[in-house]
Amino acid sequence: MADNECTFCREIVERKNAAIVYEDSDTIAFLDYAPVETGHVLVVPKKHYKNIFDISEESYVKVHKIARKIAPAICRAVNADAMNIGQNNGTCANQVVMHYHLHLIPRFCISNSGAGQVSEKGMFAKKPLNWNRQIADRDELEAVAIRIRQEIERQ
Amino acid sequence: MADNECTFCREIVERKNAAIVYEDSDTIAFLDYAPVETGHVLVVPKKHYKNIFDISEESYVKVHKIARKIAPAICRAVNADAMNIGQNNGTCANQVVMHYHLHLIPRFCISNSGAGQVSEKGMFAKKPLNWNRQIADRDELEAVAIRIRQEIERQ
Repeated sequence: MADNECTFCREIVERKNAAIVYEDSDTIAFLDYAPVETGHVLVVPKKHYKNIFDISEESYVKVHKIARKIAPAICRAVNADAMNIGQNNGTCANQVVMHYHLHLIPRFCISNSGAGQVSEKGMFAKKPLNWNRQIADRDELEAVAIRIRQEIERQ
Repeated sequence: MADNECTFCREIVERKNAAIVYEDSDTIAFLDYAPVETGHVLVVPKKHYKNIFDISEESYVKVHKIARKIAPAICRAVNADAMNIGQNNGTCANQVVMHYHLHLIPRFCISNSGAGQVSEKGMFAKKPLNWNRQIADRDELEAVAIRIRQEIERQ
């Protein structure tokens, strides 16, 4: 089932690096170690699938249900105004780790209301994503993960 | 249920513009009228939900199952190498139509193999997306939609 050469499969077994925000028997979610925005979470099926073309419907539904469940908690935890969700399939679609995963990326308006609410009107400019990706400080990631876990538990 | 001011709700009733690639009682999928790439499809629940924060689990699972079902057919129809799937929530996450929808965006390697297969290795540079979005020719969209419908029927 697991792929020994897969970064995510190895992490699921070894638990060396990831700042985990959610876990159950089938799914794990952790902070991206080189986030494009604060609170950038990856939601990952524990079984190894490469992409949407080979994932089973059962695993696919499970991982997406968890994304829907934790998305509002992530936004509350980092006081985000909006969220992009993305999933890449294949090298030419920017997939880097060839293990199915969803990116949950909180977004912030420049005039952040401070209420952690999703803006519906075009009233605010958006803060651009940081594509100059740097490996984040592990303690900072863990501090964000703690806030997200608390918000998930509160639901 | 439907929102009279919503572009997608109106289209679901009026059927004036969309080049439809798939439809059932709960979900509709059609080509984006200003595609960032050939075969850019939107998958939309017929019920009006704004975003991931208010969509019911039932509708969410249905719309995502359809995305998984039609994604390979879209890639075959346009001979794509890869696919990005995206879903935006809130103005500051680039959501424009405030009705839940998934973007299925086929991607092409510059050295397209011609086999419509998803590349797994970093062998090919990717063709960039066209963010200078223009309204596409209606007949061209319909020609692409026909090919996608045929590939879905063939599954």
